[in-house]
Amino acid sequence: MKDMENIPAMMAEIGARARAAATELAFAPSDAKTRALNAAADAVWARREEIIAANARDMAFGRDKGLSPAMLDRLMLDETRIQGIVAGLRAVAAQNDPVGEVITEWDMDSGLHIKRVRTPLGVIGVIYESRPNVTADAGALCLKAGNAVILRGGSESFHSSGLIHECLQAGLRAAGLPEDAIQRVPTRDREAVAEMLRMTDFIDVIVPRGGKGLVGLVQREARVPVFAHLEGIVHIYVDKAADPEKAMKVVLNAKTRRTGICGAAECLLIHRDLAAGLGADLIAALVAAGVTVHADAALARLPGTVPATDDDWGREYLDMDIAAKLVDDVDGAIAHIRRYGSNHTDAILTEDDAAAERFFTRLDSAILMRNASTQFADGGEFGMGAEIGIATGKMHARGPVGAEQLTSFKYIVLGDGAVRG
Amino acid sequence: MKDMENIPAMMAEIGARARAAATELAFAPSDAKTRALNAAADAVWARREEIIAANARDMAFGRDKGLSPAMLDRLMLDETRIQGIVAGLRAVAAQNDPVGEVITEWDMDSGLHIKRVRTPLGVIGVIYESRPNVTADAGALCLKAGNAVILRGGSESFHSSGLIHECLQAGLRAAGLPEDAIQRVPTRDREAVAEMLRMTDFIDVIVPRGGKGLVGLVQREARVPVFAHLEGIVHIYVDKAADPEKAMKVVLNAKTRRTGICGAAECLLIHRDLAAGLGADLIAALVAAGVTVHADAALARLPGTVPATDDDWGREYLDMDIAAKLVDDVDGAIAHIRRYGSNHTDAILTEDDAAAERFFTRLDSAILMRNASTQFADGGEFGMGAEIGIATGKMHARGPVGAEQLTSFKYIVLGDGAVRG
Repeated sequence: MKDMENIPAMMAEIGARARAAATELAFAPSDAKTRALNAAADAVWARREEIIAANARDMAFGRDKGLSPAMLDRLMLDETRIQGIVAGLRAVAAQNDPVGEVITEWDMDSGLHIKRVRTPLGVIGVIYESRPNVTADAGALCLKAGNAVILRGGSESFHSSGLIHECLQAGLRAAGLPEDAIQRVPTRDREAVAEMLRMTDFIDVIVPRGGKGLVGLVQREARVPVFAHLEGIVHIYVDKAADPEKAMKVVLNAKTRRTGICGAAECLLIHRDLAAGLGADLIAALVAAGVTVHADAALARLPGTVPATDDDWGREYLDMDIAAKLVDDVDGAIAHIRRYGSNHTDAILTEDDAAAERFFTRLDSAILMRNASTQFADGGEFGMGAEIGIATGKMHARGPVGAEQLTSFKYIVLGDGAVRG
Repeated sequence: MKDMENIPAMMAEIGARARAAATELAFAPSDAKTRALNAAADAVWARREEIIAANARDMAFGRDKGLSPAMLDRLMLDETRIQGIVAGLRAVAAQNDPVGEVITEWDMDSGLHIKRVRTPLGVIGVIYESRPNVTADAGALCLKAGNAVILRGGSESFHSSGLIHECLQAGLRAAGLPEDAIQRVPTRDREAVAEMLRMTDFIDVIVPRGGKGLVGLVQREARVPVFAHLEGIVHIYVDKAADPEKAMKVVLNAKTRRTGICGAAECLLIHRDLAAGLGADLIAALVAAGVTVHADAALARLPGTVPATDDDWGREYLDMDIAAKLVDDVDGAIAHIRRYGSNHTDAILTEDDAAAERFFTRLDSAILMRNASTQFADGGEFGMGAEIGIATGKMHARGPVGAEQLTSFKYIVLGDGAVRG
């Protein structure tokens, strides 16, 4: 790593080290991984003042660079946020080790006993933007699943991420695990990202964490498989048979609890028969809560709405805005979601089992919900512990990506001298 | 499909039709898929004479083209082989439908009930060489898992594959399923293959079936994910604690039962302490069975062996040849396999649990065996019914790829008005 000028050579060296570490990690004892994560948590807490000071340098850099207040907020670390990082590391430490788990096993008449056993995936590349806590979260989850990881954080969090990374490596050392298990790209040069996306020999999966710009770039350019979602264009369909009380609670929560997360509702589809009743009530409540409702022609006469344009369908506002539209029935909702959705999370509010079943079988979002707030689209709320992200692709991992989704499997076949006839 | 000159436009049309059919197939009733496959089996049997006549044209073309006897044998269809195709279709018809299966489900304290449900992958592209039966096998497995498929067979089997494909489409029509569920590329032009490998919008996975040339090309050039194995460089390690009787049976079966399949043993690693005893007996038995044993320096004094060269390590003979080498212990075997193996299938013969455990945890082949013949590396022998191939990658599918491995999943989340705090 001496020659920072030669990015491809530097990245190839990082990749080769990661591959070697992954080979060792594949059979690392569970308790060593747990010890490493707890020791890393201790180190982060012990060095919190240093980390906060480094973060101040990052914040100054970010302000000079003209980062938005929202971006600066994501970048900022204080003692409370460092407590959060420490708690996250300890929570992953306490999770069950997925590696070695027997997923399923069975006997064959030939006398063979066959087991499908969980194994690490190998080497994960994580490319992220300003949040320095991703350094700890992603490093911890990858290690838990026995994977080596190459972290490439945003230039904004360079100093704070660097110190958190040092703490993770201190944890690895304390547990006798290879330090190369968690590496960090030691340059702000963007060429390093381009290299990572093409390193199919050294990286098994890339996980991008950040805005649409970053994720779109990774999805377009990567030769390495990617676990990601580009957007969460989350729809809620309020069916004719919706329970009004549940609908009111769920719609308000799904839109307004937090608007900046990928599970926030972005489009409300309302059964035509509800236009003057529950539908109007829902829109009035959203308006009263401060939401700008971009309504289609049929709903635009409702007070407080603004007329929707073509751009409002399939739009991810991530703000106090929602599109709203009347549809004829569940099939109308399905057709709209197929056209404008992003296969992330979509919900139906109904007491009608047949309508729910139709919605579930005819749509193919990673997460489909009934009578529940789409804000539950989250690894923690699914009981997976931490998540490294949410994936909308259909290959390998889908929905919240936790430690278990960062694994593969192999078959163990036991015989007693069995031969094939 | 009128403009055969414009291959990209033709392939895009095939792709769009496949995507539309996949959307319908995703919720096709199980019994419709079963009826389609049984009706296809009926049609193949009813049209067997026509198929055999078409195959005669293919065989003539193949002979003119100078195909090897082995290739011509793979291409050839007679009534017995057509019986095999019919039986294969009926067997897949009789399998359980994987789509809709609840893989796992659980409750959360928030009141949510979460189900992980199996769904089709989408559109599968199958690129294969001369065997016309792949048309039926691949078409049937993809349909069973609710996937649309685009079949691109070798030019040698053009006429016989075309007729089998017509029978599959007749089955789809009889069951009221979209004919575009099973499409076949209607040209011999190789540009169609290049298009398929890049059609990421229309094809979710490519499965290549054929020799190393074809599979290597697909792995190098594809932008679409690939389920495949390039080679089966299958090792058997005979440990110091091997049972001599089991070892003799297993080694002979693994090498000689069928030499042309990917699970055939290609390299024998023998514990140093067995050189004069069991190791020598095994090699003598292989030589007596007609196997050319390419022995390392330490074993080359054994009668009937030929000296191994560097090229013999990591070589897939697919013939009556095997490489043989002494190793110091299980770690020596592991080191050799890591260096020369292909992550397909590797076996240890031992009565020592610790040695077996070390072999299983430190190697990462898709299939690892103990005291069993590597010729069991096969979807049928794993109880999966038919297989579309064996994959050595770590993403999504691994080992034998049957109908279940051609699926993805989605989460169904059920609430009763649950909102997130």
